[in-house]
Amino acid sequence: MIFSSREAHRAWLAGQAALPAGFRVGTARLSFVPVEAPKPARMNLALIALDRPTADFAGVFTRNAMPGAPVIIGRQRLDQPTLGAVIINNKVANDCAPGGVAAAEQVAAATAAALHLQPTQVLPSSTGVIGWRLPAEAMMTALPEAVTSLSSRSVLAAAEAIMTTDLYPKVRTTNVGTGGGRIVGIAKGAGMVEPNMATMLAFLLTDLAVPRAALRRALSTAVDGSFNAISIDSDTSTSDSVVALSSGAVPCPDMGAFEAALQQLCRDLAGDVVRNGEGVHHVIRVSVATAPNAQLARGLGKAIVNSPLFKCAVCGNDPNVGRLVAAIGKYIGIHHPTVDLGRLHLTMGGQEIFRDGAFRLGPSVEAALIDHLKGAELYASVPAVDGVFRPPVDYPPHGRCVEIEVRLGMGEASAVVLGGDLTHEYISENADYRS
Amino acid sequence: MIFSSREAHRAWLAGQAALPAGFRVGTARLSFVPVEAPKPARMNLALIALDRPTADFAGVFTRNAMPGAPVIIGRQRLDQPTLGAVIINNKVANDCAPGGVAAAEQVAAATAAALHLQPTQVLPSSTGVIGWRLPAEAMMTALPEAVTSLSSRSVLAAAEAIMTTDLYPKVRTTNVGTGGGRIVGIAKGAGMVEPNMATMLAFLLTDLAVPRAALRRALSTAVDGSFNAISIDSDTSTSDSVVALSSGAVPCPDMGAFEAALQQLCRDLAGDVVRNGEGVHHVIRVSVATAPNAQLARGLGKAIVNSPLFKCAVCGNDPNVGRLVAAIGKYIGIHHPTVDLGRLHLTMGGQEIFRDGAFRLGPSVEAALIDHLKGAELYASVPAVDGVFRPPVDYPPHGRCVEIEVRLGMGEASAVVLGGDLTHEYISENADYRS
Repeated sequence: MIFSSREAHRAWLAGQAALPAGFRVGTARLSFVPVEAPKPARMNLALIALDRPTADFAGVFTRNAMPGAPVIIGRQRLDQPTLGAVIINNKVANDCAPGGVAAAEQVAAATAAALHLQPTQVLPSSTGVIGWRLPAEAMMTALPEAVTSLSSRSVLAAAEAIMTTDLYPKVRTTNVGTGGGRIVGIAKGAGMVEPNMATMLAFLLTDLAVPRAALRRALSTAVDGSFNAISIDSDTSTSDSVVALSSGAVPCPDMGAFEAALQQLCRDLAGDVVRNGEGVHHVIRVSVATAPNAQLARGLGKAIVNSPLFKCAVCGNDPNVGRLVAAIGKYIGIHHPTVDLGRLHLTMGGQEIFRDGAFRLGPSVEAALIDHLKGAELYASVPAVDGVFRPPVDYPPHGRCVEIEVRLGMGEASAVVLGGDLTHEYISENADYRS
Repeated sequence: MIFSSREAHRAWLAGQAALPAGFRVGTARLSFVPVEAPKPARMNLALIALDRPTADFAGVFTRNAMPGAPVIIGRQRLDQPTLGAVIINNKVANDCAPGGVAAAEQVAAATAAALHLQPTQVLPSSTGVIGWRLPAEAMMTALPEAVTSLSSRSVLAAAEAIMTTDLYPKVRTTNVGTGGGRIVGIAKGAGMVEPNMATMLAFLLTDLAVPRAALRRALSTAVDGSFNAISIDSDTSTSDSVVALSSGAVPCPDMGAFEAALQQLCRDLAGDVVRNGEGVHHVIRVSVATAPNAQLARGLGKAIVNSPLFKCAVCGNDPNVGRLVAAIGKYIGIHHPTVDLGRLHLTMGGQEIFRDGAFRLGPSVEAALIDHLKGAELYASVPAVDGVFRPPVDYPPHGRCVEIEVRLGMGEASAVVLGGDLTHEYISENADYRS
């Protein structure tokens, strides 16, 4: 897909965003003053409500050992018989703040009361600054606005409300079968993104009737090949959560078709997250093949997209493929020191660059690699007189990637990993994030 | 140490740089055109020669699985009876280039011939771009200049010649006992620095008579607590090498004193490397204590100094300590998921920030943390109209660090790890490194 303008991208998003049957979405805005750093801050609420509570829901959460209060609560909610709503806030992650679990339960209970649900039927979800206290009172004051705005039309308002440093909302949809059943997913996340068995925040809504156990299996599989195969900056968030909700309004024609559709939707959303990663100028897609096992293939792909030096070279459209080989050598040397790299074969943009233990470089290869890098660039930096770099586009101008193929010649396993480059815009975003 | 100017730093370096007895150092410069990217490039040669070949030498090398040709050769040299010289070049790492080992041996043999040594008595060492072929012919043409310039006075010319993106040379010296015996060390390395059982390039010269086996044990211990406890950007180089040479000119009064002096020297040099890391505005020192084992303590310290988001916060003098806790949680969640963080205690700049499972934050703590960060800043970015950030100082204006203490409350093990922040200067250096 190629978007020529913000308006073209927004129109496409609107088309993706129609809600499946059985769901309503509302949003609200509020201001508050954090206790920890007393300057006014703004927060969005997003409310996803089912017309009827469902037993068919699934969730996977971060493996970070210091999880946010909503992750702790979310794990408990998985044991509840039904779920009726999700209340989401940005700006404050509610992680390791004093009284964090109680504050999240307070907001969940208020949401439940407004929707005639039990408190345990509401899942709270948060993303934002780690360490700040949740402004529960201010959130409860704003909650009626979210309830009043509930609408069965579009998920787009929620996709926008959950954004933090995202430049644009992420929405994907897919049809399953011919009975009108659909899956719609939204995601946020642009920094602190190397999900581990989960992701940033993503919410997948379907009207297809998929029983709880099958939905949880399908979600686990879909997340593994999508959100768990991306890294923007190697930082695994404390808030990562993917939640799938089925309203059951439409019979599911074919469980295999549902699983395949869910996997593709998750891969698309994960790709959207990387393409909108903080400061990302290039999406890097690493395909590792003929590896001895899938764990090594995935780990090697992650090591390449997490190498700061290789990421910087890609940012500069500089085919410094020595850094690519250094990243491979670091990973194998530390994690699989007995693996023989003698059959290592590398291509970049289809150009062979490494074979039989040595580079195959020269002026024509160099020129082809530069062309490939420039062709995959989403935007170039715009120098700012104040030294702060701001991305010049807030839509994805194209879907191309820097394509790297790694063949190890020692097995049948493979993996595809997506990552981004490392740029001035990332530094500007994160050296001054809270200000 | 506080240096008020480049001149004050250079004067101090000159005082550190007097060669121990039994060594001579020479340098040369040359130009060449890389085959892979035909634009003229400059290279320095540094030659370290012993007055007499020594049996007492030691070397540790990178664990990167794609090592450079000099590392492959260096490992073989460890089995040789004696070593008489080291020939070092910057600009080209000689890693995975076709014919790399043969080219390095060719330069070593020419060096040996000029010094009346056997080829196996010369250790080649290289640092620079990975993938480029070594310009052996041009190096051999320049070699006589290095031989002619050999001098027993100072190591400073070599410390300068081995620099790549370093802003200033790194030299440290120490006396051992009262017999006049000394150790002098030089190091280079500013990017691709997370040494693993070795480091960038460092050369440690001593006139103290320390037998080969004892020297190798002492070097291994010293490297583990110094170069292996730093990370600038998490990228482990393919060239990392630390070499220790004893001329044996002075009897060693006390092996324990030698070992302690070598350890301190290596810690000082490793600290110099981080302080001059690419784009480093702040050195971050993480002390992990009361850990269940040393491996976990070291790993946790590395995870903190390698978190891009925490590094960016430090760059911005922003006490976003949520990112510190996220980095801890990521590491423990992935590598030690059964470890209980319930007794985690954190301070930054002496301020308590985390206790009993929750942050202890507020406006006064925030203000104190900002003061601590600003006090540890080496320099602030100077916005450049062309968008390229250049460090405004090429000397270390002070020796202060951002001090982080992590207590786990579950054992006796500890570790100290040094790292740097992530800045616009790092991006500028590495997005355009080869141009």
